[in-house]
Amino acid sequence: MNAADLGLPVDVPSTALFTDQYELTMLQAALRAGTADRRSVFEVFTRRLPEGRRYGVLAGIGRVLDAVENFRFDPAVLGFLREHGIVDEPTLQWLARYRFSGDIWGYPEGEVYFPGSPVLRVEGSFAECVLLETVILSILNHDSAIAAAASRMSAAAGERRLIEMGARRTHELAAVAASRAAYVGGFQATSDLAAGFRYGIPTVGTSAHAFTLLHDSERDAFRAQVETLGRGTTLLVDTYDVAEAVRTAVEVAGPELGAVRIDSGDLLLVAHRVRAQLDELGARNTKIVVTSDLDEYAIASLAAAPVDAYGVGTQLVTGSGHPTCSMVYKLVARAASADPKAPLVPVAKKSLGGKASVGGRKWAARRPDAAGVAEAEVVGTGPVPPELADHQLLVELVKGGDVVAREPLEAARTRHIAARAGLPMSAMQLSRGEPVLPTEYA
Amino acid sequence: MNAADLGLPVDVPSTALFTDQYELTMLQAALRAGTADRRSVFEVFTRRLPEGRRYGVLAGIGRVLDAVENFRFDPAVLGFLREHGIVDEPTLQWLARYRFSGDIWGYPEGEVYFPGSPVLRVEGSFAECVLLETVILSILNHDSAIAAAASRMSAAAGERRLIEMGARRTHELAAVAASRAAYVGGFQATSDLAAGFRYGIPTVGTSAHAFTLLHDSERDAFRAQVETLGRGTTLLVDTYDVAEAVRTAVEVAGPELGAVRIDSGDLLLVAHRVRAQLDELGARNTKIVVTSDLDEYAIASLAAAPVDAYGVGTQLVTGSGHPTCSMVYKLVARAASADPKAPLVPVAKKSLGGKASVGGRKWAARRPDAAGVAEAEVVGTGPVPPELADHQLLVELVKGGDVVAREPLEAARTRHIAARAGLPMSAMQLSRGEPVLPTEYA
Repeated sequence: MNAADLGLPVDVPSTALFTDQYELTMLQAALRAGTADRRSVFEVFTRRLPEGRRYGVLAGIGRVLDAVENFRFDPAVLGFLREHGIVDEPTLQWLARYRFSGDIWGYPEGEVYFPGSPVLRVEGSFAECVLLETVILSILNHDSAIAAAASRMSAAAGERRLIEMGARRTHELAAVAASRAAYVGGFQATSDLAAGFRYGIPTVGTSAHAFTLLHDSERDAFRAQVETLGRGTTLLVDTYDVAEAVRTAVEVAGPELGAVRIDSGDLLLVAHRVRAQLDELGARNTKIVVTSDLDEYAIASLAAAPVDAYGVGTQLVTGSGHPTCSMVYKLVARAASADPKAPLVPVAKKSLGGKASVGGRKWAARRPDAAGVAEAEVVGTGPVPPELADHQLLVELVKGGDVVAREPLEAARTRHIAARAGLPMSAMQLSRGEPVLPTEYA
Repeated sequence: MNAADLGLPVDVPSTALFTDQYELTMLQAALRAGTADRRSVFEVFTRRLPEGRRYGVLAGIGRVLDAVENFRFDPAVLGFLREHGIVDEPTLQWLARYRFSGDIWGYPEGEVYFPGSPVLRVEGSFAECVLLETVILSILNHDSAIAAAASRMSAAAGERRLIEMGARRTHELAAVAASRAAYVGGFQATSDLAAGFRYGIPTVGTSAHAFTLLHDSERDAFRAQVETLGRGTTLLVDTYDVAEAVRTAVEVAGPELGAVRIDSGDLLLVAHRVRAQLDELGARNTKIVVTSDLDEYAIASLAAAPVDAYGVGTQLVTGSGHPTCSMVYKLVARAASADPKAPLVPVAKKSLGGKASVGGRKWAARRPDAAGVAEAEVVGTGPVPPELADHQLLVELVKGGDVVAREPLEAARTRHIAARAGLPMSAMQLSRGEPVLPTEYA
């Protein structure tokens, strides 16, 4: 896949090095021991949600599919591995031919999940599956953390507009993935141009204090902005005195002024004052955008304030207190020999300090109650009970190495809204609590 | 700069879109208003350290220099901006010729900083400087957050080896930058192959539970690993029963076994038991590596345990509770006109909710006491007092658009150790407290 397909501004010729060294040394040892070809099933799941969270949001599936497709060891990568003696020649030769040829099933992007939900299942030879561990976990752990925060914020914001503005608070490429995950979680737009370029997310912008300070007066700055961007622009009104700035803004742009942004102070109080002033000046349709270290609680606390849109930065891109998920990638079953017909044997680490796994290749279903509201996440091995057949969660993503489930980002966003709406009402509470669904093992 | 110079596995043809949309619309407005060419000074600083932290660690300067050099608007990027109507034609033409031609001074990488420290100063026309805001902040806010956590962990670990193993817990490219920042902050190695490839950081690997579970017995797994990786390898001993695994490990590898890894359970207790068992089996030189949700406090609590190396993941790459810094990029002075000889006028946002800035182009120095220990971070405008002349902190990084201060990563790492050693002893306390140096405004 070339740069254009994956999207500039970042060309990812290969994802093969987003990998912990031990994946490659385990491969080498398994190749030599004759166990590399044992058919294997790895599953991604989390043992717990972040403390107090009521549901998780799966994001990054689309990026995982890109990463699997581009997991190739090109000459530069192989040269590095050879030069540093990381693996031996037979292993390098095996890597040079690497192309994932197995199957991947998973929860579709935007779906919610709970402790134990098998959100991704990767099947193939041990060798081809073990290599994907690190990059798959990087993507899902990061993107799902952001989407979970975004979902809570969007629940708090209701119908009001949410704009992702966190690029400056996180790694420049994590920011692009964060915009994408925020969109899945319910945000409407981003300030990050790279996210617009790469994923087609709507981009927006306002203005910074620097622009006002550059000019000889606030009036000059507003005039400069309105002259070129039009009356529909958003003027930043808290560089000096807010009341004076609002007056000047409406004088310069007229009552058709698009919006004003407030970025400091007591937002609740200031928003009320600004709304009253705008109305008094006849600018009844001028919107109010607030920014300044917002999180889901601050958004909720502004529910009764005359605010039209929230710009959220730091707390969004850092997962609002939970910047990562604790998803793991575990071998849950493998064949007893390299014979393709050998039956799968469930395997699991023994419990020690809460790190036990449940062995076996799993299915998952979300059982509804009589009213159609979800009441349990059911996870099992073996045949799916008939009454759950229509409520299964895993879908086929990769078949024989080919991606079969690419979809527009909008689909994940729509799915998330529907999945959240299917949960018990208490899912939307921001207060700390237990997961809203119990996970039952069938 | 081409891909090879920047380093695979990620080719960054341009960093120009790692930018908030408002930077470009402010540019357009300033171009039209005739204010775009006013000579301007922007500074990066933070108003506070994360709660309880005693010092900050500046990391990412080398990446900022790469980003500034590669901040170019190529045809694909310009096409995107045109198609989406983000800026007008004259602005697109200006962007097509963009190349930063100003000067950048800053604290050198690895240096410590405090609230108000002007860690970076960007000077040039308003237009050329304002565009760099987002990408500079992304890099410094992310990398410095990781380096600060790494520095605390390295203080806690003393002479013991620290291995960065967090790739799976953060965005795949943030992980590479995190490895780099961790190295600056005192880590010795990483498990992330991309970080080895891109930055030459030493890479290491052990083994995962999946490898043991793949085989018919733990003995088979250990044998497979030792046969191909040699006796110096690290065997993972907590898949089933630790005592049995240690016995098997020494039987298979002999007393020359390199190391064992413990990844679960009460690490303090288990490490003592494993050390005693290894010694009893004659494997006195076999090292013990511990992993499992370590942070600086857990590392410190293991100081008396027989541990040789720590593998740190989640808490490192998420900044140990503080995944970002609160650095901002503020216009602090600008010329009164576009005349290159016009004097600079200090500017600052008015205080509202603690977001005030100190106007004026600043210098900074770290004043030592009579014993040579740092006693204050002194920040001022105007001439530098003669007694502080030799203690200045800002160095020239970019001159007339050319990078003049590239250095090997090792230099930043060495500098950090020296900078930390120059602080009062209390800097090394892990407990929450105030910044160890007061910031004085001269």
